[in-house]
Amino acid sequence: MRDAYPTVVIEDVYPELDCGRHPVKREVGDRLEVWADIFKEGHDRVSAVLRYRRKGERRWSEVPMRHVENDRWTGSFVLEENARYEYTVCAWPDHFGSWCEEVEKKLGAGQRVEVELVEGRELVKEAASRTRSRKLKEVLSAFDEAAYQERLRLLLSREVRGLMAAHPDRSAATAHRTLEVVVDRERARYGAWYEMMPRSQGTVEGKSATFKDCERRLPEIAGMGFDVVYLLPIHPIGHTNRKGPNNTLTAGPEDPGSPYAIGSEEGGHKSVHPELGTLEDFRRFVEACREWGMEVALDFAIQCSPDHPYVREHPEWFRWRPDGTIKYAENPPKKYQDIVNVDFHSENWKELWEEWKSVVLFWVEQGVKIFRVDNPHTKPFAFWEWLIREVQEEHPEVIFLSEAFTRPKVMHELAKLGFSQSYTYFTWRNTRGELTEYLSELARGWAKEYMRPNLFPSTPDILPPILQEGGRPAFMMRFVLAATLSPSYGIYNGFELCENRGIPGREEYLDSEKYEYKVWDWERPGNIKDYIAKVNRIRRENPALHELENLVFCGSDNDGIIFYGKTLEENAIFVAVNLDPHNLREGNVYFPLDLLGIADDEWYTVEELISGVDYPSMGWGRYVRLDPNVNPAEIYRVRKEG
Amino acid sequence: MRDAYPTVVIEDVYPELDCGRHPVKREVGDRLEVWADIFKEGHDRVSAVLRYRRKGERRWSEVPMRHVENDRWTGSFVLEENARYEYTVCAWPDHFGSWCEEVEKKLGAGQRVEVELVEGRELVKEAASRTRSRKLKEVLSAFDEAAYQERLRLLLSREVRGLMAAHPDRSAATAHRTLEVVVDRERARYGAWYEMMPRSQGTVEGKSATFKDCERRLPEIAGMGFDVVYLLPIHPIGHTNRKGPNNTLTAGPEDPGSPYAIGSEEGGHKSVHPELGTLEDFRRFVEACREWGMEVALDFAIQCSPDHPYVREHPEWFRWRPDGTIKYAENPPKKYQDIVNVDFHSENWKELWEEWKSVVLFWVEQGVKIFRVDNPHTKPFAFWEWLIREVQEEHPEVIFLSEAFTRPKVMHELAKLGFSQSYTYFTWRNTRGELTEYLSELARGWAKEYMRPNLFPSTPDILPPILQEGGRPAFMMRFVLAATLSPSYGIYNGFELCENRGIPGREEYLDSEKYEYKVWDWERPGNIKDYIAKVNRIRRENPALHELENLVFCGSDNDGIIFYGKTLEENAIFVAVNLDPHNLREGNVYFPLDLLGIADDEWYTVEELISGVDYPSMGWGRYVRLDPNVNPAEIYRVRKEG
Repeated sequence: MRDAYPTVVIEDVYPELDCGRHPVKREVGDRLEVWADIFKEGHDRVSAVLRYRRKGERRWSEVPMRHVENDRWTGSFVLEENARYEYTVCAWPDHFGSWCEEVEKKLGAGQRVEVELVEGRELVKEAASRTRSRKLKEVLSAFDEAAYQERLRLLLSREVRGLMAAHPDRSAATAHRTLEVVVDRERARYGAWYEMMPRSQGTVEGKSATFKDCERRLPEIAGMGFDVVYLLPIHPIGHTNRKGPNNTLTAGPEDPGSPYAIGSEEGGHKSVHPELGTLEDFRRFVEACREWGMEVALDFAIQCSPDHPYVREHPEWFRWRPDGTIKYAENPPKKYQDIVNVDFHSENWKELWEEWKSVVLFWVEQGVKIFRVDNPHTKPFAFWEWLIREVQEEHPEVIFLSEAFTRPKVMHELAKLGFSQSYTYFTWRNTRGELTEYLSELARGWAKEYMRPNLFPSTPDILPPILQEGGRPAFMMRFVLAATLSPSYGIYNGFELCENRGIPGREEYLDSEKYEYKVWDWERPGNIKDYIAKVNRIRRENPALHELENLVFCGSDNDGIIFYGKTLEENAIFVAVNLDPHNLREGNVYFPLDLLGIADDEWYTVEELISGVDYPSMGWGRYVRLDPNVNPAEIYRVRKEG
Repeated sequence: MRDAYPTVVIEDVYPELDCGRHPVKREVGDRLEVWADIFKEGHDRVSAVLRYRRKGERRWSEVPMRHVENDRWTGSFVLEENARYEYTVCAWPDHFGSWCEEVEKKLGAGQRVEVELVEGRELVKEAASRTRSRKLKEVLSAFDEAAYQERLRLLLSREVRGLMAAHPDRSAATAHRTLEVVVDRERARYGAWYEMMPRSQGTVEGKSATFKDCERRLPEIAGMGFDVVYLLPIHPIGHTNRKGPNNTLTAGPEDPGSPYAIGSEEGGHKSVHPELGTLEDFRRFVEACREWGMEVALDFAIQCSPDHPYVREHPEWFRWRPDGTIKYAENPPKKYQDIVNVDFHSENWKELWEEWKSVVLFWVEQGVKIFRVDNPHTKPFAFWEWLIREVQEEHPEVIFLSEAFTRPKVMHELAKLGFSQSYTYFTWRNTRGELTEYLSELARGWAKEYMRPNLFPSTPDILPPILQEGGRPAFMMRFVLAATLSPSYGIYNGFELCENRGIPGREEYLDSEKYEYKVWDWERPGNIKDYIAKVNRIRRENPALHELENLVFCGSDNDGIIFYGKTLEENAIFVAVNLDPHNLREGNVYFPLDLLGIADDEWYTVEELISGVDYPSMGWGRYVRLDPNVNPAEIYRVRKEG
């Protein structure tokens, strides 16, 4: 037999993830709502508080929790800072509250309560001597001088109840385990990304662009309404086994190689490719982005060219084969001969892990606060959990985006252990059913507590069939879906030009700029830059589109038209998208008037935001006609009248 | 930075309840199926085992787990004994398996694997020196003497894979937390209870029956097909504030008092009321039940008459009020003046708790292995968890039934912390919607892992309106529901007589035998003993009715008819019940032929088990006509032809 047992049960705490193994995520300014089942045997009343503090602080703050129904309690607090918080639930028997309830019931039944009054006095006396509260002592004196009715009035008064509640006996309190919540800045949830291959931003054929060339593109990118300029790796590129055009094994002397074959005699992960400019040029580029209201995200790809300085300086970080070579990256039968992987479990792993942390911190020093992490799923989970926690302890504003298109549970695990944002399967979800099911999975259930999607219609590695076959209408349609289904989304440069020349039968770009110098005509006819600018402006102006959880899918008579909405306070946005890039689709879509608080016979206004036309409306249905070449999507803002 | 990190992720383990805080329940002979998400970064293969042991044993047994899909693994073992078991999941990287997979992929792509072969040999060598396996050393010798093709054949052979799997390197293994499963005997899940007021089993008016009178009723009770004879408290009854007929405060000198006012100068919880006989008589009664194939359940009511020996011997176990009295039981404004409660938090609580344990053990010694616990929800949760664990450690065959009709989460908590069975809200669930919703809640979701329902249509305290108003048809209907919806159910004596005289406007019996001597005519006209016997025989003969989880609700055109079924292997039972005791109801009910594996155009046999009539059938629908006075319910056994 133990010497003490818990008196109050605290169970089913929300948002506790995996028994507290993983933190949930929120953003600065959010109110964290905590729920718990809290109860005790019998009829005794219980008191409960929600305790919280910034991680690392000693003192807890407390707010009371309140009973809602069926032994379910709730409490909340505002997450003021960009930091990691701890919280827990604590509850104890409320003896004086129980006493009040019992006495009131007896009085209601016309019973006398002389003995109960003496018992109530005992409770006050106990509290007074435990807490040395002067006010409680005054209550005792007043009680002793009073008669029956006055004593009753006194002990049941709001003041005395408040005093007793303020001085609870917590000796028999039960505390739940301590849980964590990571509070990121808003950009972790909401932002439009423009993915850029820096060397392709220039104007001279067969030559790398520079950071100055990149800088010249910023007005145009900002004009389209992007928040983040994400650069593919900017580091020196190795020579050994350099890849040629279209990923061939035989690079010519003029071929630049893949930017993911990082490291050469010119430096490694802390260096800038000399063709792009100097570190100083890079810092200037970061500053220029800031001036245009954007920030820079860097690619963090933990892999080395065989020419990387680490190979010479730290051979013990690599796994050497019996034939004296280092194992290059493989996904059998695929081979990546221009890349060797470090061995995260090498004997010298601690120094290796610290080195990667120093790489991140190096770029943080240069002003980079967002990292898109390449292939995190092939590195140990524990490494990422450690790295992200370590970096964010010093720099809570740093955001990590997980680029993993692997098994679903692996993707979720990466999000759970710290990645601020995650790539998703959106790239391959095309039908109404697929989109509804997948986005519901992300916006509902537990995923929404830890996984923030960032939707990319295409990436340098993936040009999906819908874009190859559907052309410009498909680009517009997939763009609107990405930009309105998720608060974070991104496009890869060339998307605005509807670039869709693929390798036949594969999901890859033909003559990909990953292996070649490229020059683009950013004003190429047929581009959708104005359309992108318009939709990004609609995103900015409508806070409902800054959230994920508020996504609801609504009725549509035509299965080729998906219809969904998001609301936030007074802002209500609905989107109808023709998922078929080849055919006009038309039919009724249905506004959920019940959710909007609009009566069936009430007039309301539907403002189509792309065309800017207002429609006075009544009833649930709206007939839409979506021509993929003209208006593949419509975005409605619904306003109640008066 | 820590010195080591887990390498394999193990998450979402089923059936882990409340992060392992509470055990799940199974019965002897069950196979415990365990599921878990198990994965590692990258493409490495993983091995996993399910480990288990009887609690208290040092050695673990192990069975391999297998991957099913989407990183979900499963394994199982048979729970051979009536005991508490522990189990956990353990997983580690499977280096040799990964090597085999990689080599096979490369061979499939026509690549040479000389270097890989040397790496494979290294793995075997490492295993050989780690485990000193002679067979692995022989593999090494054979390898060294062989040429390329032969070496490949050898390392990829089933024998070498088996040897390597049998000698894994577990140094980087991850283990999940240890979880518990309580394995009860079958009676914890399945049984028909007959609740008996011992003093009412005789034939002389105004006088208590004896255990010998009770014994004389056993052939009849066994004949109705009951498994458990549950006795209301058999202890001496106090005199102070004894209750009179219909719970009045003024008992006459001849009034026997409530059997729940336990304890007098004749003894307490370890004594037998002298009017019923001696302890020896009681033991003989237990033995007689056994001879009739039944066992005895006792009422365990932790409450004392003011005359209980404990009050004299252990005044410190009670809470004394400022006026020198002990607080009697109350649920304001209701008062139970004939009962005082012990104080589980008294300074001498350890001795008090031990005393209650000794009470249970005393009756276990007398042959009682089932306890129906009165009002457990007013005693500390921690007490029950301790008591049940302690008793079952010595006597795992002991079953505890929780009598709590309180808040749902409190009822669930009692089940989680150890009660083998639970009373339910069935007593008040009458409509098709109510029954479907509530029984689905019990048979599905997490409840089925820890809460075993025992359905009582009425109890000594509760005569629900449906029985008061519905008369005999309602008794038959509610009986069939209880007996077929749940593997455990019980009736309170008099139910078979359709006794339903209530206090007007209340859910209580008029002239309840709780406060009076009673003599019943057990052959009273209108009794439903034959009906009960028939249904209990159907229960025994059909194993599908011994389970809960297999319950499915099926279609019925008439909302007054509920239709549901249970299947177990070849045994398929369906039940149609007219929920309206006043009117004939008719309409189609629908057999779920897809679940039964019967084609829409296939002949099958429906055997109505109460009438014994066979119906050749085809298609889903069956027209039923249920007359409350004739056949308020029909029970069908479905047999496929051929």
